[in-house]
Amino acid sequence: MNIGLDMMGGDFAPLEAAKGIRLFMDEYPASPCRFFLFGDEAPIAALLEKENIPPSHTTIVHAPQVIGMHEHPTKALKEKTNSSIAVGFQQLAKGGIDAFISAGNTGAMLVGAMFSIKAIEGVLRPTIATVMPKENGKTGVLLDVGLNADCKPENLNQFAILGSLYARHILGISQPRVGLLNVGEEEGKGNLLAQATYPLLKENTQIHFTGNVEGRDVLLDKADVVVCEGFTGNVVLKMAESVYDITRAKNIQHEFLERFNFEYYGGTPVLGVSKPVIIGHGISRQTAFKNMIAVAAKMIDSKLMDTIRASFTA
Amino acid sequence: MNIGLDMMGGDFAPLEAAKGIRLFMDEYPASPCRFFLFGDEAPIAALLEKENIPPSHTTIVHAPQVIGMHEHPTKALKEKTNSSIAVGFQQLAKGGIDAFISAGNTGAMLVGAMFSIKAIEGVLRPTIATVMPKENGKTGVLLDVGLNADCKPENLNQFAILGSLYARHILGISQPRVGLLNVGEEEGKGNLLAQATYPLLKENTQIHFTGNVEGRDVLLDKADVVVCEGFTGNVVLKMAESVYDITRAKNIQHEFLERFNFEYYGGTPVLGVSKPVIIGHGISRQTAFKNMIAVAAKMIDSKLMDTIRASFTA
Repeated sequence: MNIGLDMMGGDFAPLEAAKGIRLFMDEYPASPCRFFLFGDEAPIAALLEKENIPPSHTTIVHAPQVIGMHEHPTKALKEKTNSSIAVGFQQLAKGGIDAFISAGNTGAMLVGAMFSIKAIEGVLRPTIATVMPKENGKTGVLLDVGLNADCKPENLNQFAILGSLYARHILGISQPRVGLLNVGEEEGKGNLLAQATYPLLKENTQIHFTGNVEGRDVLLDKADVVVCEGFTGNVVLKMAESVYDITRAKNIQHEFLERFNFEYYGGTPVLGVSKPVIIGHGISRQTAFKNMIAVAAKMIDSKLMDTIRASFTA
Repeated sequence: MNIGLDMMGGDFAPLEAAKGIRLFMDEYPASPCRFFLFGDEAPIAALLEKENIPPSHTTIVHAPQVIGMHEHPTKALKEKTNSSIAVGFQQLAKGGIDAFISAGNTGAMLVGAMFSIKAIEGVLRPTIATVMPKENGKTGVLLDVGLNADCKPENLNQFAILGSLYARHILGISQPRVGLLNVGEEEGKGNLLAQATYPLLKENTQIHFTGNVEGRDVLLDKADVVVCEGFTGNVVLKMAESVYDITRAKNIQHEFLERFNFEYYGGTPVLGVSKPVIIGHGISRQTAFKNMIAVAAKMIDSKLMDTIRASFTA
């Protein structure tokens, strides 16, 4: 399997990306992964040598342009056709790589995912998900976390399917419980969107819907897949991240708080597009890169895209 | 000033309510507050004697019925006209008391507030707010936290005014900075509601709008008043509460986490109705009751309702 990695994306690129590859190879020595590395060839080659990453496992694809973290996504992708993100998506689209990972400009990654490889047929709106730690040591999926700020009930219903498939095949949860994020437990509670979504989830035979979950349940093991529109999901995700940042800054140490470290989960998968795309946090370091590679490998290996495709054509 | 207290509301009523009054009298010995206590007379009288609360400061208003925590609000208020909540609102409406506090059925309190004392003229939608601790030791206001799950931009614009007046007169923040809860910092970000609300807040000369705030900023001192619709606000509030509950259960101790204890802030004020109404958490204990009384006294003393009235007729 060929995994594409944007070597220029993120605040600590390309150094931490290279270290992440090294870390992955140490942890998964038997992995058949080959790495296609997009970016400025000379410095990347030097780094690979320094990190002792054998050339037999890597191909550097020279892409001298960089899309900055604050550039306008559509404009940058159109103008910088030799940027690491643009070249990466070209390769993904034509099959040169099987998955694409970047910790660079999130907007450009989303635009690239939507327009170069497109949505799986039947998926109305691709979505981005995050892994959320639970207080009992388990993990769950929260989606959408920001790609779709305004949603229709049918979108949330599809997110429930996509999240369930991700939870089953990537997190290894055999029958993921789906909860609808809401302001109360009872059916009939919520805003118009939640009220209209509830019956769709209830009738959806592709998922195991267990009812509403509230803000207080997000960190509890009440559901494995928590579904919401991207506005609330984004606020929840960023608030969870801030709890980690604040407690770390204050030196409050505990295993539970440590599990909020996003690096453990790698990045944010884009679900519902035809190939695996993973977007990393701008401040990703080697552990995050290593885990993004591991998730991408798992997405390829488990044939998650085929399963999603089958679910949406059933 | 006459403060009305539902003695039957909450999981630990009436004992903790009585203890809360005692605590308040100890902390504010010079307070001119008189207490009107709604509930079952005999046990309340016994409790007051036990807690050494002088009859000169209290009037028990016999209300033998209790609205349970899970009863349907409208139905319960209509059928149980001799319940502590119903009798409390009757007294509030006719001026027998100047403020009403309950840790009982939230829905019944909201329905009571909306229909017995009504909204201030010009206020399209009353709102409920919460005090949110900031990582630097300060506090801010978040609203709406659940009364209005679906909102229009003009509602959020009014919440900004109501929250600013509460921050100024009750929290003592001289020029409260208003932030719009959103998924990004820049103007133009967000769902349709946030996008349409931004220009209204920007042009509103009654507030000091400082732009968008994200989920990661809710616990930072980036804005004093954070405005959102009640769906997201409710999720954020309950998630913050759960961080406190989880860390306490895991015995993770730190001053920062301790400040998430809702008891310090008393309860949730209903803003935009004609008289002070405060709704307590169902698990309120004496400290929460004491602080709800203190906030109610401050709302009366500062003539917050007159200020709000003036703002909405300006």
